[in-house]
Amino acid sequence: MQLTLDGDVVRAGNRARERFYDSRGYGHARDGDLDLAPVEAAHLCYRGDIDAVDGMGVQELLASGAVSAVDFLVYKDLRDRGFYLTPAREGWVDEPAGVDFVVYPRGKGPWDDAVAHRVRVVGERDDVPASSLGDCVLAVVDEESELTYLDTSRRTVEGTSAADVPAVEGTLLAERVLCWDPPAALYQQAFYGQQLDEDAVQLSLVEAAYLAREGVLSVDGDDAAVVERGRDVEGDRFDRRLAVYAALRDSGVVPKTGFKFGADFRTYADVESVDDLGHSELLVRVLPADHDFEPRDLALDVRLAHGVRKTMVFALVDETVEWVETRRLTP
Amino acid sequence: MQLTLDGDVVRAGNRARERFYDSRGYGHARDGDLDLAPVEAAHLCYRGDIDAVDGMGVQELLASGAVSAVDFLVYKDLRDRGFYLTPAREGWVDEPAGVDFVVYPRGKGPWDDAVAHRVRVVGERDDVPASSLGDCVLAVVDEESELTYLDTSRRTVEGTSAADVPAVEGTLLAERVLCWDPPAALYQQAFYGQQLDEDAVQLSLVEAAYLAREGVLSVDGDDAAVVERGRDVEGDRFDRRLAVYAALRDSGVVPKTGFKFGADFRTYADVESVDDLGHSELLVRVLPADHDFEPRDLALDVRLAHGVRKTMVFALVDETVEWVETRRLTP
Repeated sequence: MQLTLDGDVVRAGNRARERFYDSRGYGHARDGDLDLAPVEAAHLCYRGDIDAVDGMGVQELLASGAVSAVDFLVYKDLRDRGFYLTPAREGWVDEPAGVDFVVYPRGKGPWDDAVAHRVRVVGERDDVPASSLGDCVLAVVDEESELTYLDTSRRTVEGTSAADVPAVEGTLLAERVLCWDPPAALYQQAFYGQQLDEDAVQLSLVEAAYLAREGVLSVDGDDAAVVERGRDVEGDRFDRRLAVYAALRDSGVVPKTGFKFGADFRTYADVESVDDLGHSELLVRVLPADHDFEPRDLALDVRLAHGVRKTMVFALVDETVEWVETRRLTP
Repeated sequence: MQLTLDGDVVRAGNRARERFYDSRGYGHARDGDLDLAPVEAAHLCYRGDIDAVDGMGVQELLASGAVSAVDFLVYKDLRDRGFYLTPAREGWVDEPAGVDFVVYPRGKGPWDDAVAHRVRVVGERDDVPASSLGDCVLAVVDEESELTYLDTSRRTVEGTSAADVPAVEGTLLAERVLCWDPPAALYQQAFYGQQLDEDAVQLSLVEAAYLAREGVLSVDGDDAAVVERGRDVEGDRFDRRLAVYAALRDSGVVPKTGFKFGADFRTYADVESVDDLGHSELLVRVLPADHDFEPRDLALDVRLAHGVRKTMVFALVDETVEWVETRRLTP
């Protein structure tokens, strides 16, 4: 079978519709006929189901640029995994914006209502705007053409940590605040800071700024002095981190430094006492809402979080904080 | 006991020398007397061994800036771990440049010859020049005053992988080269590329550029066309990555993409056949020799590598390639 390319659609007739759409979920049914996206036609060529499109086999379709290699690799991989999928075109699927393929649950197809994954194809070197994440799976094609699927979703963050802390005094030292003889609840119940020893607790600048703003910590110059110091050493990033820190504390979640994991914070949802501390659940990286990811950085964060049995969450800061959970997916 | 600060040295007499140097390794013996660095005097104050320096206790020494909080935290931590250590000053230790403390093996002290660690103190927000790594341990103090020790050393990279590959033809497609019906040795023995299926191998641009330069791969425009494409999509980074790729292959080591680990390459030292592939040993991140690390990025890379049982190596590229291995250390 030979087909022809009409703009960005490969037109096929009734027989092709029966063979490829009705029984195997390729393309988009148009009246009695069939429209195929070039990537679908290339896959049918690759499988030997059709001979050529405008005289081109799969090698020529890829070489000519009529079909993108990364789209083809992802399409093929999902087909190899037993999925039917439809290119996300206006009129072909609901809400095509922001994704390349709509993937159906195994055993289902374009004639059903269910959707398993909304997939966006990304090359290893493509920038990924943080604002575009959520409700989509990134299919990242690396330089050696291996695929990594990253599932992204918007979420909230909530916990039950809520210890009261009596007033405490501190001294601002370079990049930390030292509290000598603080009330036990500061560290023991509320899990602020880190003990230098039994008689002294060190607070990070972000912890100190939050506690000073809440009226709990007295420090020379009040919260303004701590925030100023934070901005001196971190710039705008300090304000973003403080916004996320406050959002987490205000939601009953205890943020602690995520430094050892290369993140901004690790979080504990249900702290009653540091003597009975569970496993921290989330790793949080704070970013401006207009951040562009390099896929490699995403892969690094998600892989590390998985390895330490935590969930990676990106906190995107603008006027508000939006939370995007990202995890590796094996479709 | 009250001591006085003379410039950046705390002067103490013969009795202090006996108590603090001879028996516990503090300070530097000067004739019959003792010189202490302020951080050592602060630690003696903290322990209650001396009362004050110029009327200042440990709180005042830290608050006045006479002693840096991060230096104090690292000094205290190493003492808590049972080490004797000496501030790295000219005349106090050999080769003081580039480090803050010279740490002796447990049970040894400044009167012995052995050195366990040469330690540089780094705050979480300090830049760390890549060129300054090697032969030192970074003691990174994070914002919550927790410590992470990272041991850095210069090394070489060597292996026994050395398969011959017959000539092969390929087509340059956007960011990859596709070889249809290549010789089996290309993938099977030499482990170049990734199989699309049994009849086709996809090469990354860096693999293709190397193979074209070696005269193995024929491609339209030769290696120049592949390198040009690489520079189009990655800029200078492509040249650095190609230099490292070539250095690894020329040393008998097979580099494959490290994308899933957020690195440039993972490496296999002894490949005979992909059917009998061992565990990859190294994760390699390619950087310009004048790169400045953020300690958090170092922590992320080293943590991830450890979690997947690989060794993190930074390849610093200038005229040559220098290799810096970095691993977490528990002193």
